[in-house]
Amino acid sequence: MAKNLIEAGYHLQVHNRTVSKAEELRATSITVCKTPAEAADGVEILISMLSDDEVLKETVSGRQGILKTFPAGAVHISMSTIAPDTAEFLAALHENSGSTYLASPVFGRPEAAAAKKLYLCISGIAKAKEIARPVLECLGQRVADFGEKVGGANVVKVAGNFMITASMEIMAEAYTLAEKNGLDRLQVAEFFGSGLFAAPIFQNYGKLIANKQFEPVGFKSKLGLKDARLALKLSQASYTPMPMVTLVHNRLQSAVAKGWGESDWVEGVSRGVSEDAGV
Amino acid sequence: MAKNLIEAGYHLQVHNRTVSKAEELRATSITVCKTPAEAADGVEILISMLSDDEVLKETVSGRQGILKTFPAGAVHISMSTIAPDTAEFLAALHENSGSTYLASPVFGRPEAAAAKKLYLCISGIAKAKEIARPVLECLGQRVADFGEKVGGANVVKVAGNFMITASMEIMAEAYTLAEKNGLDRLQVAEFFGSGLFAAPIFQNYGKLIANKQFEPVGFKSKLGLKDARLALKLSQASYTPMPMVTLVHNRLQSAVAKGWGESDWVEGVSRGVSEDAGV
Repeated sequence: MAKNLIEAGYHLQVHNRTVSKAEELRATSITVCKTPAEAADGVEILISMLSDDEVLKETVSGRQGILKTFPAGAVHISMSTIAPDTAEFLAALHENSGSTYLASPVFGRPEAAAAKKLYLCISGIAKAKEIARPVLECLGQRVADFGEKVGGANVVKVAGNFMITASMEIMAEAYTLAEKNGLDRLQVAEFFGSGLFAAPIFQNYGKLIANKQFEPVGFKSKLGLKDARLALKLSQASYTPMPMVTLVHNRLQSAVAKGWGESDWVEGVSRGVSEDAGV
Repeated sequence: MAKNLIEAGYHLQVHNRTVSKAEELRATSITVCKTPAEAADGVEILISMLSDDEVLKETVSGRQGILKTFPAGAVHISMSTIAPDTAEFLAALHENSGSTYLASPVFGRPEAAAAKKLYLCISGIAKAKEIARPVLECLGQRVADFGEKVGGANVVKVAGNFMITASMEIMAEAYTLAEKNGLDRLQVAEFFGSGLFAAPIFQNYGKLIANKQFEPVGFKSKLGLKDARLALKLSQASYTPMPMVTLVHNRLQSAVAKGWGESDWVEGVSRGVSEDAGV
């Protein structure tokens, strides 16, 4: 994503907890910053992408956090997958210091990010969206607006990651049933992926699941579990019984328990289903 | 399907338990038959499409069943959604009387059948498939061959109907979560259906589920329950733990218990999720 912004002509102040990540970027187009506060200093737009709610909160309001330096009128595009409540909380903090927080979680694995094929969901104040839009359009194939309530896009992201995980579970169960009844997993996956289920999720994950191909790791099982927890919490908070959320939450919990937390979530789901079936 | 065969120039000997169904067909292209035996008399190819395993068995081997008259060398294309075991059993009966039984379950709602957009799966003896193929190609957009073992295509059909039901449950849960968190169900369905989940199942059923639109009835909940039972039985017979099958089986069981057996399975699933969530 940073590379695509550089290619579009932006100069970036970059900060990452893993310092070496900045080395992949063209040195003349970036200023490496030691802290979030340093990265936020003097910018009009800031993008954050962090692993969970707590890390994001610390990055925003910690001792060396964004809000220490973030200019009045600037827009924080927050891309992390977090709870809508956290988004509302952080939006209020920004408002207090004269800046704006915009929720903009994204869908897509690293390959999609590299190819500017991400799907972005946004929610928050209309004026901030106008400011953010040219930047967002450098990153993805679609920017979908889910209204003024800042947590809206986060609800969509949590719902979407649930849909993806549950789809992986469906495929893993169906293809394992086929395998155990003498059929070729890949042929079955190809049949559904090119017909009734001809969508990226069923085609791309379907092939990985059918082939039991779990490398390279694009999205870790432990992050998948975090997202399943977000879905479970949101379903609880809104009194929405979601038995499939409970199911995929258990599946990913088991994946981490078995030591697959650092493996791709495809492995977390698919290998779990296979092991349950003794294959 | 009968209309498409007539359009392709075939003359049909038709039998239906509901006699009035034949009235929709052009009288000069059909001979209405009172029994399965009468319909099977003298034909080269016979197509059956019935609601469940027991009805099909009776239609094949009952007192006025197909095998009473079915010519040696003729091919029975069996399109019902049934257990692979039933297919194996019926294939053996046909073999004993010198004819061939071919499994050819189909995917697609009535609109897809009318538009020749069905997906057909076939399995059975290669020579019978050759005989059947021109007829099958009048009915669908794709004929996928799942090998010589006659139950193979039935495994794919059972797995596929499970995938469809489970996808409906996923959508119903996700869109209800969105609704209860202040979002527009249809906007969320459109976002996923035009992106990561841009497949017929998520687009067509997604729209019905988002709009809570349950008419006209294309496929009844009680038949969906029958198919969920087939999936559950197959998972049991092959020792394949499938927690999502258990879940959708319960969902459709509840739909029938609530009196929605004659309603579309979209209603059976989607209304169940909504009612659980008090909306």
